[in-house]
Amino acid sequence: MIKLLTIPPDSDFTLANLPFGIFSTPDRPRRAGIAVGDDILDLAMLGESGIFDFDAAVLNRPVLNDFITLGKSVTSRARSQVQGWLEKEQGSPVQARHLVPMAEATLHLPVQIGDYTDFYSSIEHATNVGRMFRDPEKALLPNWRHLPVGYHGRASSIVVSGTPVRRPVGQLMPSDSNHPVFEPTRRLDFELEMAFVVGKDSELGRPISVGEAEEYIFGMLLFNDWSARDIQRWEYVPLGPFLGKSFASSVSPWIVPLEALAPFRVAGPEQTPGVLPYLQSGGANNYDIDLQVRVNETTVCRSNFRYMYWNMQQQLAHHTSNGCNVRVGDLMASGTISGQTPDSYGSLLELTENGTRGSFLRDGDTVTMTGHSGSGSSRVGFGSVVGRILPARN
Amino acid sequence: MIKLLTIPPDSDFTLANLPFGIFSTPDRPRRAGIAVGDDILDLAMLGESGIFDFDAAVLNRPVLNDFITLGKSVTSRARSQVQGWLEKEQGSPVQARHLVPMAEATLHLPVQIGDYTDFYSSIEHATNVGRMFRDPEKALLPNWRHLPVGYHGRASSIVVSGTPVRRPVGQLMPSDSNHPVFEPTRRLDFELEMAFVVGKDSELGRPISVGEAEEYIFGMLLFNDWSARDIQRWEYVPLGPFLGKSFASSVSPWIVPLEALAPFRVAGPEQTPGVLPYLQSGGANNYDIDLQVRVNETTVCRSNFRYMYWNMQQQLAHHTSNGCNVRVGDLMASGTISGQTPDSYGSLLELTENGTRGSFLRDGDTVTMTGHSGSGSSRVGFGSVVGRILPARN
Repeated sequence: MIKLLTIPPDSDFTLANLPFGIFSTPDRPRRAGIAVGDDILDLAMLGESGIFDFDAAVLNRPVLNDFITLGKSVTSRARSQVQGWLEKEQGSPVQARHLVPMAEATLHLPVQIGDYTDFYSSIEHATNVGRMFRDPEKALLPNWRHLPVGYHGRASSIVVSGTPVRRPVGQLMPSDSNHPVFEPTRRLDFELEMAFVVGKDSELGRPISVGEAEEYIFGMLLFNDWSARDIQRWEYVPLGPFLGKSFASSVSPWIVPLEALAPFRVAGPEQTPGVLPYLQSGGANNYDIDLQVRVNETTVCRSNFRYMYWNMQQQLAHHTSNGCNVRVGDLMASGTISGQTPDSYGSLLELTENGTRGSFLRDGDTVTMTGHSGSGSSRVGFGSVVGRILPARN
Repeated sequence: MIKLLTIPPDSDFTLANLPFGIFSTPDRPRRAGIAVGDDILDLAMLGESGIFDFDAAVLNRPVLNDFITLGKSVTSRARSQVQGWLEKEQGSPVQARHLVPMAEATLHLPVQIGDYTDFYSSIEHATNVGRMFRDPEKALLPNWRHLPVGYHGRASSIVVSGTPVRRPVGQLMPSDSNHPVFEPTRRLDFELEMAFVVGKDSELGRPISVGEAEEYIFGMLLFNDWSARDIQRWEYVPLGPFLGKSFASSVSPWIVPLEALAPFRVAGPEQTPGVLPYLQSGGANNYDIDLQVRVNETTVCRSNFRYMYWNMQQQLAHHTSNGCNVRVGDLMASGTISGQTPDSYGSLLELTENGTRGSFLRDGDTVTMTGHSGSGSSRVGFGSVVGRILPARN
């Protein structure tokens, strides 16, 4: 019996999507693949049959960096070729040999991440946090509407969806004390984010303009920026978040290329006051991507990437405006994506009003984030990023 | 005429030192070397002659990571073997063939840096900054004496000594305005720091204790954390320094292994109040390393690494206390190393009292940092980290 490629209704991985990832099977180590329906198309194997017009050895590596480095003209054409091949060979024994059921594969981090940056680009999130932790009257700090605030994060502890997350131990200051303690966090949280993967190296000293930025963005994935609020709160002044974040961040395994998201481009919120010329970006530079967070079986948040005040082009232009260079595989995350209504808040910090209307994460909880655009055969989805909380080490 | 290995008086690179680096020559690409006197011992070539008991192919790579990954028992033994070989073969034609005048070689970044972390561990520096920018009465923030404050920095823009540094352009808020502008920084500064190179991978979720930390530290180098004070000031609340730092950081080319510094171990300052058990580190865990900064021909700062309030073992234990993993090649910098007297302040911010008693860096200025311990044939030095300021792009 020949395995037929079937794409279930509501699948995130339609022929309109074709996201790239890295997988392994018991018989063969890590290599490139494309998610389609409930299967993975083995790109390394397909490359060996000679259908591509580039050196297909880059598909047989444990990360996608070398493939992405070939440039968008090559990676986009490869995706179109795969699209054509999937349609042409539909039902053939040849096609069946190249498909691996996703359930039988192990998914890995898709890229080697050089640097990871986390932005803070949702105005609703920044306002909620400012209101709770600083002055409710001046929730947004003076710089916030003028530049996409961001900070450097830890790359080494970024893990792929499915990796369990151990509750971190850390130094914190109990509210009723002035002696810090070293204890498991009592305020473990998720942050619903998306991240983009840099697709092209830039030169040190040469900024990327808003207009050029898209050329440097390969694709997007879901990002859970796990946070320990009590550790963060005690440590973060004056140099920013550190151990409250660096114990783990989780990414979804499939990178959706920017071109698959083109039909879902939308305009972003109006920026008031107007931004400086180096940040001005006309047109539809946001994306309409529905996002959800579940804790165990309960949906706790419904948000959308389109709420972002600062778009990815602005983030990248700002990041490189001082001459800072970027490299293929760098990850830039959005910051928590909250909307205007309380059910759209992207963290438990906001959803529970700092723990006063519900609890932070408990040991054994599983957090699942999903995201998609469109529907039916045009649906372009991200699959999910999942993590289960393990108890603290003792 | 046979080239003799001679070590000039006051050389940083005595037989007691033997630091590792990466160099290239017109006839051969990047490979490992050891600095000795004014020469470089070509380790890749020496490895080919079979004197080492490990696979010497790791010496013929463009970075030291694979060599360092072999572990301290191997790298220390290699260093001892080289020491013996240099003495035994002194003056021989064989030895001469393995020496390359440093002046004829190009020096490169010695490691591929995964993550770069910058601490803030000098109490004098933190106090000076707090006094100028926050409240002089409460210069030190409440967390400072309880944990080594640090933040994640940008790894992609770390460059080797000698690389020119372009004055960054960025968003800043003039003091007499409430409209930000996008201009070249007016307050370009250096920061005198040292950094250590991580020598061993750790596992995600498994902290490194203070007692184990030394095993994870391969060696040290000089570090100039270039800073644009006006960009930094406008952007850094609430998530910390970002573009005010990420345009460039410079390192000295030679990594001095920790064992070469053993004779210069000293006790650090007393820590009051006492620190939590996970940070308690008895014994001589600081190092007596004289440091100097010159701007052009003028010495502007004389400091010493021994002033550090938090030592490297504490930094590493704290950094991994939440389970964050480290990888070979990660860089952890000390933060600006200031002493108690004004001539020992490690930045122009402090030396000029925020620009009121002198100026920040001008285009064309060259900043040179040097550092060494001991004297004569026991001297162990770091060479220098040098950078010249290029005018901003227009």
